[in-house]
Amino acid sequence: MSMSLDGFIAGPNAGPGNGLGDGGQRLHDWALIPSGSDRIEVVATGVNGAVFAEVTSTGAVVAGRGTFEPAGGWGGDHHDGVPIFILYRSQPGIDISRWPLVTAVNDITTAISQAKDAAGEQNVLVHGAGITRLALAAEVLDELELHIIPVLLGQGRRLFDGLAPGHIDLQRTRILEGEGGVTHMHYRVRY
Amino acid sequence: MSMSLDGFIAGPNAGPGNGLGDGGQRLHDWALIPSGSDRIEVVATGVNGAVFAEVTSTGAVVAGRGTFEPAGGWGGDHHDGVPIFILYRSQPGIDISRWPLVTAVNDITTAISQAKDAAGEQNVLVHGAGITRLALAAEVLDELELHIIPVLLGQGRRLFDGLAPGHIDLQRTRILEGEGGVTHMHYRVRY
Repeated sequence: MSMSLDGFIAGPNAGPGNGLGDGGQRLHDWALIPSGSDRIEVVATGVNGAVFAEVTSTGAVVAGRGTFEPAGGWGGDHHDGVPIFILYRSQPGIDISRWPLVTAVNDITTAISQAKDAAGEQNVLVHGAGITRLALAAEVLDELELHIIPVLLGQGRRLFDGLAPGHIDLQRTRILEGEGGVTHMHYRVRY
Repeated sequence: MSMSLDGFIAGPNAGPGNGLGDGGQRLHDWALIPSGSDRIEVVATGVNGAVFAEVTSTGAVVAGRGTFEPAGGWGGDHHDGVPIFILYRSQPGIDISRWPLVTAVNDITTAISQAKDAAGEQNVLVHGAGITRLALAAEVLDELELHIIPVLLGQGRRLFDGLAPGHIDLQRTRILEGEGGVTHMHYRVRY
């Protein structure tokens, strides 16, 4: 997840047609920039490129409806044809029957478990803020990789919001200083 | 400021007698631990010690009432007899007339300006979340040094909260991996 230093993963007024919120593209400029209609260009090189490559070397994707649907379901293929598990309480709001890689699952523990099985030796990409919170609460999120962007947005959508009061210890496993002032922070979660 | 990875500088239920909130001491264990009645012991060594030494090598302190009063005004001397500037809208809620180092000021720009003059070649310590926000809004905060603690508190008092929507660019100037998984992140603010 790309996050401003003050904790936001999207700017204010996020919604249809403004998925990243006002100014939210700034959080992704290190890796992905819009390039023409519906196209996105990968611009990460160097340290940033190496970290970004980890995202696309995952063997399965787990996402929530709030990430999957605005992205048009990634056309049914997030990257390289890996399986995608979408968490739904009820029916998907978008027809997934045409996408053989996409499976709807109705609880987070099952979604992560099936994704791990599908990914084999590779990591699972857990994609989105809502799903991250659910996975933390269910104690099935193993690692956090945050790309800290050198900007204060002031307002917007937070990554960490609405977690139960508590004390989840983390183990810092890697800090990388990326280009453009982006700092990649990796932690293991210790429940 | 010491901050959990999820953005909190104090746990929930902070108040008189529980200044750091539930579990909030965890954020300060890298540097300061309570040691008997009203005493605090400095425990930072190594990288953490070097960073902590920067705090006490500042030449003036600026703080708000919410930091100054619960701390008992640091007995009138935060460290090494440097001048202390306290921001008050009205009267201090504590008698400062007995403390020659302490000056009450009623706007943030003046407070920072006087503190910089007093500090000379040394840095000014801006102490507390409320005052940090005010100084950012007034564009008089030059630098941020965050000590990122490897823990998720879930709830509590945030450092970055209630800022206006906007886009304050930062320049990453130093990342240090401290002991105990604490990461010291230093930025210059670019208004």
